Amino acid sequence: MQVRGAPAIGVTAGYAVVLAALESNFTDKPSLMNYLNQVSAEIKSARPTAVNLGWAVDRMLRAAELIEDPGDIESGLLSEAMRIQEEDEAINRRMGFLGKDLIPEGGAVLTHCNTGALATSGFGTALGVIRSNWESGRRFKVFNTETRPFLQGARLTSWEFQQLGIPSTLLVDSAAGMLIRSGEISCVITGADRIAANGDTANKIGTYSLGVLAKENDIPFYVVAPTSTVDLKVANGDQIEIEYRPEDEVTHFQGLSTAPDNIPAFNPSFDVTPNHYINAIVTEISVCNAPYTESLKQVVELVADRS
Amino acid sequence: MQVRGAPAIGVTAGYAVVLAALESNFTDKPSLMNYLNQVSAEIKSARPTAVNLGWAVDRMLRAAELIEDPGDIESGLLSEAMRIQEEDEAINRRMGFLGKDLIPEGGAVLTHCNTGALATSGFGTALGVIRSNWESGRRFKVFNTETRPFLQGARLTSWEFQQLGIPSTLLVDSAAGMLIRSGEISCVITGADRIAANGDTANKIGTYSLGVLAKENDIPFYVVAPTSTVDLKVANGDQIEIEYRPEDEVTHFQGLSTAPDNIPAFNPSFDVTPNHYINAIVTEISVCNAPYTESLKQVVELVADRS
Repeated sequence: MQVRGAPAIGVTAGYAVVLAALESNFTDKPSLMNYLNQVSAEIKSARPTAVNLGWAVDRMLRAAELIEDPGDIESGLLSEAMRIQEEDEAINRRMGFLGKDLIPEGGAVLTHCNTGALATSGFGTALGVIRSNWESGRRFKVFNTETRPFLQGARLTSWEFQQLGIPSTLLVDSAAGMLIRSGEISCVITGADRIAANGDTANKIGTYSLGVLAKENDIPFYVVAPTSTVDLKVANGDQIEIEYRPEDEVTHFQGLSTAPDNIPAFNPSFDVTPNHYINAIVTEISVCNAPYTESLKQVVELVADRS
Repeated sequence: MQVRGAPAIGVTAGYAVVLAALESNFTDKPSLMNYLNQVSAEIKSARPTAVNLGWAVDRMLRAAELIEDPGDIESGLLSEAMRIQEEDEAINRRMGFLGKDLIPEGGAVLTHCNTGALATSGFGTALGVIRSNWESGRRFKVFNTETRPFLQGARLTSWEFQQLGIPSTLLVDSAAGMLIRSGEISCVITGADRIAANGDTANKIGTYSLGVLAKENDIPFYVVAPTSTVDLKVANGDQIEIEYRPEDEVTHFQGLSTAPDNIPAFNPSFDVTPNHYINAIVTEISVCNAPYTESLKQVVELVADRS
């Protein structure tokens, strides 16, 4: 958890492959590639849910394979990792542009977890869209959840909004229902850690509840994620592996115990929001609508054709 | 927040009226009643949402009015306060008995906040029903939310289950959606702070979300509350006053800051779950079903006739 946010995890993974190449002593290409493949499998297993991790590592391996002289691989990998980082920021800005009219003047948006510059190479996904709406000149209220157990919302998102000069109000996760029901919220916008081919979306625990609450109250629910988050190999959300994290994240807070000793905790890091709760998925290519099996395939194939 | 849980607040309010009578120096009845009426209005304003507060204070005032000799009022009020406390525990046990078959063998229950012996005179409301199901010999899993921001679930409910020898698992509030969607939960059971004539129920913030999530996943949602929690003067949930608590309950945790300075927080203590999310309301008289306007009126009038 030193690095968090699916896009930032992908960018970091790219540099991890560079470091592995720098630390290795192999001079022939087959041995070096064999070593890089081993290290990559280890890197991929660090966080199972965020698809950007595997996506970035695979992209680094493909880059290495294309370089003939093993002596050029280190510098080639570094260039590729930097390209991933630069592209990530450009992609975020493009999503921000495409989603810049989602929040109405005088309305209010609710977001969850942290999806800003601290979770990406810069600008952000869901937070980037909120930012671009704000920078378009429209004024609206911004609410963000604290996002237990790790408090990414309270600690990071509130700070980012403050830095951007966007007034925001913090709430505990369980107060989102009342807030949405009050009629004050115009839309809910979140990021994603992995999106299945049918649009089912894995994201920070609590996202599913927001999707259900938004639908129940006829409020649009938007997901903002680059096409690298879409995993066409996964048909639906039931097939997305969910990471469970240590129980003491729930039973303790900054070293202080919040529960009696020996109380077990259920601590999934992510949940899956089925596609029918999602009104649109903003990618860097276009704003995708249902049926997602078609619209997501289209944008992913378009990116693959370009590269 | 030294005393919490609607029934415990009611019982404490009874003793608060006794203390006021003991501290006063009035020897004539009109002056004493005038003073008690003033103090009672103050006591009532301490927590606006829990109806038991006003209910208990009004009952104390009625008891005082029926005593002719002002010298007998102190002891008469003490008897009445003790009677409220004894009745509360008996009422809790009766609700536990009536709700003892709500959780199936091999199933699982989810509860929210604290509704056990620590929130009542003993036994508990929602927790009392879970306890009576367990004591009937059936075995099932028990999950409880931590209940931010005050962590009544983590700190109190987990402790009570541990004391009762009932294994329980703790989760952050936002993980309830995934847990309910997983199919593992058989029913959700909560308490109530005020129930309107139509069954709309004010309870700890986050209860509404659980009601929506339960309905969306076809799982029954039960409320357990004594008839003293039903407020027939309030037609529906929109008319229930919701208490907002200090923002630093959200931005701080046991003195530690969890958010940047100067971030405002939205901190309602309660929310309202509309009646159509509630499958049954367990009172000490009977298990009430929709239409609640009829079933709740019936049980409240039955109690009024008896007293």
